Amino acid sequence: MAEQGYVEASFERDTAYIPDRITRSGEGDGNWPVQRDRYRLVAARACPWANRAIIVRRLLGLEDAISMGLCGPTHDEDSWTFDLDPGGLDPVLGIPRLKDAYERRFPGYPRGITVPAMVDVPTGEVVTNDFAQLTLDLSTQWTEHHREGAPDLYPHDLRDEMDEVMERVYTEVNNGVYRCGFAGEQGSYDKAYARLWEAMDWLDERLATRRYLMGDTITEADVRLFTTLARFDAVYHGHFKCNRSKLTELPVLWAYARDLFQTPGFGDTVDFAQIKRHYYVVHHDINPTGIVPAGPDLAGWLTDHHRAELGGRPFGDGTPPGPPPPSELVPEGDRP
Amino acid sequence: MAEQGYVEASFERDTAYIPDRITRSGEGDGNWPVQRDRYRLVAARACPWANRAIIVRRLLGLEDAISMGLCGPTHDEDSWTFDLDPGGLDPVLGIPRLKDAYERRFPGYPRGITVPAMVDVPTGEVVTNDFAQLTLDLSTQWTEHHREGAPDLYPHDLRDEMDEVMERVYTEVNNGVYRCGFAGEQGSYDKAYARLWEAMDWLDERLATRRYLMGDTITEADVRLFTTLARFDAVYHGHFKCNRSKLTELPVLWAYARDLFQTPGFGDTVDFAQIKRHYYVVHHDINPTGIVPAGPDLAGWLTDHHRAELGGRPFGDGTPPGPPPPSELVPEGDRP
Repeated sequence: MAEQGYVEASFERDTAYIPDRITRSGEGDGNWPVQRDRYRLVAARACPWANRAIIVRRLLGLEDAISMGLCGPTHDEDSWTFDLDPGGLDPVLGIPRLKDAYERRFPGYPRGITVPAMVDVPTGEVVTNDFAQLTLDLSTQWTEHHREGAPDLYPHDLRDEMDEVMERVYTEVNNGVYRCGFAGEQGSYDKAYARLWEAMDWLDERLATRRYLMGDTITEADVRLFTTLARFDAVYHGHFKCNRSKLTELPVLWAYARDLFQTPGFGDTVDFAQIKRHYYVVHHDINPTGIVPAGPDLAGWLTDHHRAELGGRPFGDGTPPGPPPPSELVPEGDRP
Repeated sequence: MAEQGYVEASFERDTAYIPDRITRSGEGDGNWPVQRDRYRLVAARACPWANRAIIVRRLLGLEDAISMGLCGPTHDEDSWTFDLDPGGLDPVLGIPRLKDAYERRFPGYPRGITVPAMVDVPTGEVVTNDFAQLTLDLSTQWTEHHREGAPDLYPHDLRDEMDEVMERVYTEVNNGVYRCGFAGEQGSYDKAYARLWEAMDWLDERLATRRYLMGDTITEADVRLFTTLARFDAVYHGHFKCNRSKLTELPVLWAYARDLFQTPGFGDTVDFAQIKRHYYVVHHDINPTGIVPAGPDLAGWLTDHHRAELGGRPFGDGTPPGPPPPSELVPEGDRP
């Protein structure tokens, strides 16, 4: 997402997203049917909410059905931009700013221009930026385009418990780190910090005996937690003052995060250089110098995690995805 | 010290201190003779340069000869203040701001008002703020007032090597963390970070086989390194972006720091709450919100360090100091 306000007395995320969905039958307000080669996922490697969609697309093997455009790590107050692309234009949409796709759909669009966004390529209009629904729909609506061996990331028999877990992960952790970082008053920061660490302790306990959040197999709940953990020491620990400890000092969560990082589809989507650049450059009201820290040392991400000792079948009855297409590789210098 | 400028393209410390000395014979420009009950050490627990003097005074048992005034952790651009004292006045000097003692000596004093400072109580004039010379003089000029069993913190036969080690610790580490934190340009930050960590690696190697920096016994070199290490994870790691790793992730240096922390005269002078408050509140140009992080968890400071396995005689032929006088205890809530 692109947050507009940053620091507030007590941070509240604007969650009024464009609620359209792309569905198998095309049902819903916007009448957007699942269709190969029609939509473009616009993401940014820096953004944790977009990183979810990048991972889910990879795990499900939707690269051939849904193309991907990537915005650069920094953006102005107006919009994420395609500044990584030749000429600063997305090669498929032909626009310099993601905002142009929002404006094409809703002239004068008054809210934040956020990633991830699904854009209808023929019209150039944004379809939805509702990040939470978007990934679930990749799992449940796009099944005919899934690769062979794609995992079931949202299994029917687990949904009730999964929805609860994901809600708590969202409010307390995914958004909890922002609540710490953008707190403008000591009291609201202190409350946010206590909430975050209560949830981290809950996760630590839950994952001490379970390989993945829902048990033996990777689900979307893990994807959602992972994107925050991947940014924890690089950004949230210092920049957002989530500093009771580093992730590397929490043996269970650190091993869990490394397990996922080393699983195809997870770590190969993470660009630490872009992540750091995004937060430290864009949030000028909490880092006015714009200096990007050189640390932390990332080598630990590739060390043994020993989580296989807990058993588990990471992809259930499926298989891991192959390597990313060459055009979607994270540059070597941005990886551990 | 009270830095005036904070962020600069490339940070340079103003090192033009008042060079007077208090000496046994009273020799030197200012004619300040060593004399019991005549001088007041004005310090602040927050400040690493002042913390040196607090520790040396404790180790040498000079509490009865030199009284101590403590400024609060935050100060305005003008001066450190006695805001912790009843009525906001230092009970001995009767002044609200340390600047008053500087002005008494030099009306219109144009430089930063820094701690530590030695103040001549009868005249209320600051004698010196030359922090590096000040502690060496406590060791070498105040010998007749040292406690029984006081250690030799600046042994004759080690001085050449010690001066070299202390110089490198000063330029690369004590001041090196500030060079990282106050860098206003990415290039100068990157250079500062590389310099700092090269020195940290040197120290790590040096201390792997030696209990203390100069060998078997505590010297002033250890005092000088300790005050930076004590602040490392609480402040320098995040606030100053010295974040290759936390101190807690460097087994040798972390054990060394805990060894000293648990030695009487070191840890009992450290007030983590004041340290954090100082840096995060005063440096508004790198932390505009003024929010003080709740972390890190400090419990680790009291864990076993196993450094005694390297042998050593911490106080040489001397003994550890007793506990601090009750009036100089760090509040319980500010300690691990």
